[in-house]
Amino acid sequence: MQDHRAPAIIVHGGAGHLGADDPASSGLADAPRLVGVRRAAEEGYRVLAQGGSALVAVEAAVRILEDDPTYNAGTGAVLNAVGEAELDASIMDGATLRCGAVAVVRDVKNPVTLARLVMERSNHVLLAGPGASLFAREVGIPAIENAALVTPAQRARYEASRRGSPGTKTGTVGAVARDRAGHLAAATSTGGMAMKLPGRVGDTPIIGAGTYADDRLAAASGTGHGERFIQLTVARHAADLVGRGATAAEAAQATIQEVGARLDGEGGLIVLGPTGPAGFAFNTQVMARAYSLPDGTIVAEL
Amino acid sequence: MQDHRAPAIIVHGGAGHLGADDPASSGLADAPRLVGVRRAAEEGYRVLAQGGSALVAVEAAVRILEDDPTYNAGTGAVLNAVGEAELDASIMDGATLRCGAVAVVRDVKNPVTLARLVMERSNHVLLAGPGASLFAREVGIPAIENAALVTPAQRARYEASRRGSPGTKTGTVGAVARDRAGHLAAATSTGGMAMKLPGRVGDTPIIGAGTYADDRLAAASGTGHGERFIQLTVARHAADLVGRGATAAEAAQATIQEVGARLDGEGGLIVLGPTGPAGFAFNTQVMARAYSLPDGTIVAEL
Repeated sequence: MQDHRAPAIIVHGGAGHLGADDPASSGLADAPRLVGVRRAAEEGYRVLAQGGSALVAVEAAVRILEDDPTYNAGTGAVLNAVGEAELDASIMDGATLRCGAVAVVRDVKNPVTLARLVMERSNHVLLAGPGASLFAREVGIPAIENAALVTPAQRARYEASRRGSPGTKTGTVGAVARDRAGHLAAATSTGGMAMKLPGRVGDTPIIGAGTYADDRLAAASGTGHGERFIQLTVARHAADLVGRGATAAEAAQATIQEVGARLDGEGGLIVLGPTGPAGFAFNTQVMARAYSLPDGTIVAEL
Repeated sequence: MQDHRAPAIIVHGGAGHLGADDPASSGLADAPRLVGVRRAAEEGYRVLAQGGSALVAVEAAVRILEDDPTYNAGTGAVLNAVGEAELDASIMDGATLRCGAVAVVRDVKNPVTLARLVMERSNHVLLAGPGASLFAREVGIPAIENAALVTPAQRARYEASRRGSPGTKTGTVGAVARDRAGHLAAATSTGGMAMKLPGRVGDTPIIGAGTYADDRLAAASGTGHGERFIQLTVARHAADLVGRGATAAEAAQATIQEVGARLDGEGGLIVLGPTGPAGFAFNTQVMARAYSLPDGTIVAEL
């Protein structure tokens, strides 16, 4: 019998539509968007295989994607309406329901790690804006210049958007994992929506919308039109469906279907339950993702 | 047969514990905490009886409580760790699932109205911090000094807390309503947790945690230890229970029971479904609330 408590991880690198010039349009296995999610899933799986916790695994996976300029998170995030990167992230431990999140952060390289520190070293769940930066300094995370998060490609996109070209960049990143002890965790990180108003908070740092984990239900991480995901409490809803008997794949599919049918919303979702394989669904053209098979093989797909 | 689509409203003025010197400890019907919730419910009910929408009713009720210095919302909010008021609010329309919210707002008299304008005049759901203030100016809401939100009573409490006296003030406010057309809405507003870190965001502006409304399920507004409410996606969870057949009272009770049992969390919840009477539950000593009976009578209770 297969051990369904075998370690498992699934990561996503954002759901969206490919521009004609997107290297991923080639479908080549070495497209940057596939390379990154594979690396992230491999690193997360390595943590799990060595007996590490799901919480450590999802943080490690998301950090890799934050540091990869291909994705809309950490370095390489999209720019807001005034040309600055504002970052959101969250993390949740399904064993304890402890969680942490940050929003509208402008001066931290790895927001998911700051979210974890909010969880572990404050009495709060979510810190936003300058208060999140103050807390970062208190727990020893150095400030970086906002410009250090901005890549030439994102600056060029911003300038094109100001000239009226529609911004299409998506690439929120996330991971959900199950460790050898059967505990679940989820984490998500993003630069949000291109050309957003300053101070806009999307679904990513909202526990229940972009991220959720409860060992009794499931773990989930979303990517897409954040406002729509907030309206339907997407991550919690998918977890509830698993709790009521759906497989992870069925829960992801039903939830994304509802986002589309009720709100005309687009996006994708990854889900992992207490047992069984990971599931995912998206109603966009592509969603970069990578996941482990029971033998530890990592599969990367668009 | 009773018309269960008769207008209905329930408001809360916070769940918590009474200090020995709290005027409400007297149990007198004219205790300030009861007077305010009664006024708010009466005003909301007046809107509904005249054929106004549930959305307009909950905004009107919450504005009254924001302006009442008795409650921890708008004027009279508690102060954070650096002695300033930072306000959170949200509102949601169950007919359309449209919603708006603001967090860490320091210069607006009625955050619930700013939340409604985020819903109606931006493409976003949640704006936090200085960005929310920028948006307020763009939509014509004047800036007020933070000191104008701070009452002498709250300043004295802050100074006592700095000297080590535990702060006990609670008083998040909220309203849920059902209009003649059967549509639901919910709104919540708060100053958050006394002595919170600057930038802390509680459950109040988190759609699904402090506030939720979906005509297919129910409308709910919470008050209590916000971090715990976020962890269990309390408002959405209660709405889901109504969607699966519970009465509003049963849903409120089961949800608050779970917050206590799983997280040792304290607070209260008001819930109203597409039919039937409003329900509420709390696991604190008191929760100021007022609600309409089918004949339009308003009952206020602690």
